[in-house]
Formats: sequence, structure tokens, C-alpha cells
Amino acid sequence: MLAMNQSSPCKIAIVGSGAVGCYYGGMLAHAGHDVHFLMRSDLDTVRRDGLVIFTKGSEVRLPRVRCAGTTAEIGPVDLVLICVKATANPELERLLPPLISEGTGLLTLQNGLGNEAFLSERWGAERVMGALCFVCINRTAPGVIRHMDHGSISIGEFRRPVSGRVRAVAEAFNAVGVEASAVDDLEGERWRKLLWNIPFNGLSIAAGANVAGVLADAGLRTLARSLMDEVLDAARRIGHGIPDSFADWQIERSHSMGQYRPSSMIDYELGRPVEVEAIWGEPLRQGLAAGAKMPKLDMLHGIIRHVTERRALRGS
Amino acid sequence: MLAMNQSSPCKIAIVGSGAVGCYYGGMLAHAGHDVHFLMRSDLDTVRRDGLVIFTKGSEVRLPRVRCAGTTAEIGPVDLVLICVKATANPELERLLPPLISEGTGLLTLQNGLGNEAFLSERWGAERVMGALCFVCINRTAPGVIRHMDHGSISIGEFRRPVSGRVRAVAEAFNAVGVEASAVDDLEGERWRKLLWNIPFNGLSIAAGANVAGVLADAGLRTLARSLMDEVLDAARRIGHGIPDSFADWQIERSHSMGQYRPSSMIDYELGRPVEVEAIWGEPLRQGLAAGAKMPKLDMLHGIIRHVTERRALRGS
Repeated sequence: MLAMNQSSPCKIAIVGSGAVGCYYGGMLAHAGHDVHFLMRSDLDTVRRDGLVIFTKGSEVRLPRVRCAGTTAEIGPVDLVLICVKATANPELERLLPPLISEGTGLLTLQNGLGNEAFLSERWGAERVMGALCFVCINRTAPGVIRHMDHGSISIGEFRRPVSGRVRAVAEAFNAVGVEASAVDDLEGERWRKLLWNIPFNGLSIAAGANVAGVLADAGLRTLARSLMDEVLDAARRIGHGIPDSFADWQIERSHSMGQYRPSSMIDYELGRPVEVEAIWGEPLRQGLAAGAKMPKLDMLHGIIRHVTERRALRGS
Repeated sequence: MLAMNQSSPCKIAIVGSGAVGCYYGGMLAHAGHDVHFLMRSDLDTVRRDGLVIFTKGSEVRLPRVRCAGTTAEIGPVDLVLICVKATANPELERLLPPLISEGTGLLTLQNGLGNEAFLSERWGAERVMGALCFVCINRTAPGVIRHMDHGSISIGEFRRPVSGRVRAVAEAFNAVGVEASAVDDLEGERWRKLLWNIPFNGLSIAAGANVAGVLADAGLRTLARSLMDEVLDAARRIGHGIPDSFADWQIERSHSMGQYRPSSMIDYELGRPVEVEAIWGEPLRQGLAAGAKMPKLDMLHGIIRHVTERRALRGS
């Protein structure tokens, strides 16, 4: 049982200490929680120098941070924040067991679809929560996080309504200035986020166009909207009634993003893993299984899967 | 009136003296026809040194070649072979008029759909013929053509059955060892060729995969076959009854091509113009106009158009 806003601090493990893990974990540590970071390449630097988060004109300095090179050193915790890329999920089979005891909750901050189901199949649905992060953050050096913009987080139970523990986590974040909300329909929220990510992250890789690039090309803009229509149809068949106007609004708000480069575009260009199955493959499979026709997503997914796999092979 | 196999030689202009123009024009010159090449960058070299065609283990040397820097110097001819890229069609409005007199025939050797219609709208349908070239040729230096493989050509009237002049052109080619046939349904033949070019040339640009690359990736192979299904449906609605088995055979024969790189892939990688509208845009528009649904081709076309236009902008 989580008791994140009570006097005894909650023990939390951060698995995946990239920008997302260090930012959200760091803010919880800053609030006084007992946060343990699993680290690899940054371990020595952070153990010596701590973490710094540059956020909205101010600095959060955490000179002493608990970090470990293995989850066995951390041991059982109340809550695990899972912040690895979805492509690294197979590693969780080895990483998570030492952290899990009777009441341990698993909160995935990963992108796309399928991550809660992955955790649920292995460690039980009752442990699993998920969160959507709307945030622009970069890790600019070991232990140095730059929080560029946004930062809100929506937290929910996996296929259950909001619970006390979800509210507790949201309150813990709100207490340190991270805007957090508890949501009943986590999967519906994921589909709403995918409505934007599928076309804009997708065309950023397949056509090499940033947000302004998609919007400036009438052909790509129409394709983006057609992809949204496919996603809307799939989401509705699965039970998430997203209105057309939400897609219109997603396109509308994109105009203010300018030359914004979706995270997948940056990952692809820097040779990092791209979450192909979480963002395109799993929505496609779930949509097809629900009877939706998704020919454009099928084409987009096939192209992205091929180019990312080929690049991974070249890199190795 | 063409009289290509009679004693008085036929006067022919070659517009677009790249590999295709030099090969087919050079073979007609070799047969004794009065062939005039319109040339730009290669003009001085070819005027001095002539043309050499390395073909199937032998050499065809044409030490004296009639070439000109303008079509006005060539003047009216019996037949124009149009061998520029479809992307250069607007230039024909300026180039062709000096070549055209009462009986002049226009034979386009260009790829894809829309070229006969372009000529027909400007200079009259009765002049227009078209040809499909199944050939691997390269221009390796000014005036030097390397004929790698294949070489057959199918020639037909634009929306009319085979005529005497089409038979005459085919016979002229056959007389110099270029396998040529006269076809009644030129547009049907173009759709049959597109059935392969649309997926394989398309995925070569959008996914960077050569023929072996498409076939080795189960996802791309399935996409290629789905694209073929869209093209088959469009062709049938337009009146070209291509059987499914022809698509199966197209996939089957592709296995023997190995690491073959479609011409569009080479053009794209070398920064040359890609015939986007002739190969993907026009079939899409014709298919949609005939009531076909072509969502995968729509996506493929949008991506290819964007990446080729962006590259062209960068190059300028």
C-alpha cells in the first residue's frame, strides 16, 4: 500500500535513468521521498556529483542521490517507475524481480500501447499503473537534466478506475510543482496521445518532416489527417469514443509548434532505438483485431520498421 | 507517313540524349536511318568522337553522329523519339515545335502514365505513339553507353490499335537486333509495368530497400503485394483486365533480381529528378477517378513526393 503523502517516505525505484527517469524521479526525491535510481553509464558521475535539473528558469540540485548499478542492491520497493524505452522491455524480466514484494506497484511512464499489458502478464494486473508524460526534457550530460517545456503527467490504473495510490502519486508530483492528474481511462488517454504521435512522429521518420514540414506540405497534412481518421476509427471500435473535433484540434494546436522535431525523429537521427511497436505496431494490431481498416498505418508502420531495423543493423 | 524500312531513310530526332535516347537512337542510326540527336552537355564530345554502345559483348561504334544544340537546327522530321524524363515535359513545349511538320510522329519512350496524354493535348492524338523499354542501360561518359541487360521495347499507338507506322518502327528496331513488338493496348501494358514499378521503385525510395531488401522483409513484401492489389483494382476499373496471377508472377520473377536497385532508387540517391507523378501520382489520380480505393499508394506517393521535393530544394 502506497502512502506517498504521509510522514514516512515511500521507497521508490527508478528503472531507466534517462531524461524521463531522472526528471520525474528527481522531483520525487526533491520532495523527500526515498528514491533509488538504477544507473549504468552515469552511475559514477551521479554518485559523486548528484543530479541537477534545470527547470523553468530555476535549478533543482540534488547533491546526494541514491543510485545503484543493479536492482538487487536496491531491493524491494513500494513503487517502481519504469522509464526505459519500450524497446528495452525484455530486460525488465531480469531487472524487476529484485524490486518486487507483496505491495509493490509498477508505474510505467513509457510511450504508446502494450507496456501495461507487458507488465500485467508477468507481474499481475493489480500492480500495474501507467502514466502519460507531456514534457520536453533532455539529458544534456551525466546527471544533468534540462526541462525545456510542459511537464504534466496523467496517471491511471491499468484497466481500472482511479485508486487511492494513483491519487497519492499524483499528489506527490503536484506537491513539487509537477502538474499531475489522475485519470480513469488510461488506455483512452493513450489513444488520444497516439492520435498525434502516429502521424507526426511517423511522418517525421518516413518523410523526414518535422511538425512545420508536415503542415506546410498539403499532401503530408492530408495524409496526417487520414491517419488520424484511421486511429479514431480503431479507438472507437475498441471503446474509446474520441470525437472528430479532437483530431481537428490536434492539427490546429500543431501549428503553434513550429519546427518542433518529434522525439522519434530525434531518436532516429541520433541512432537511438525507436519505439516502433509501442507507437505504430501495437495500435495497428489492436485496430485490425477490432475490425478497423488501417491501410495507411500499415504502410507507415512497414516503412518505419524497415528503416529503423536496417539502421540498427548498420550501427551494430 | 513513316517509311522506316524502305530505301529512303527516315529522318528521326532524338529529344533527350541520355542513356535511353543514345541507345535506341544510336541503334536506329546504326541501321542507316537519318538520326539527329538533340544534345546539351555532351554535344561537343559526341560531335568530335561520336557514340559508342557496348552491348552484349560487342561494340557498336558510330564515329560520325548528327547532333545539334537546338531543335531548330534539326528542323522538321518524320519521327521524334522523346527520351527526356517525364519531369522535363514542360520543356517539350519549347523543344518540339521546330521538329513538327504535317506527318511527324511523336513516340514517347518515357516511364509511367500521362506522357502520351501530355503530347496528345498539345500536338494532337493522331501523332502520338508510346513505347515501354525493358532495358538496363547506363551512360558511363559523354557518348559512351553501356547496355547491361534486356533491351526489348513494346511500341503502340496512343489509344488506337497497332498501325503501319508502329509496325515499321518495330521492324526497324528488330532489324538491328533490338527486340521490338507492336502492341494494341499500350495503356494496359503501362499498367502492367506499373504493377511492378509502383511497389518496388516506391519502396526503394520510401524504405531504402532494393528488390532483395523488399523480398527479405516479410512486412515490406506484404506491403508490395497489397500495393499491387490496389493497382490491379484501379487498372481493372479503367478497363485493363490484369489477372491476379500476373501480380504473383511479378513477385516470383523478382526473386531472381537479387540486389537489383530500381532506376528510381538510383535517381534518388544520385540527386537526379524522380518521375514521381508519372509513376505514382498519375496512376493514383486515375485510379481514384475510376472509383478505386488506393490508401497505400496515397501514403507512398505522399512520402515520395515530399522526400524528392525536399531533396530538390536542398540541392538547388
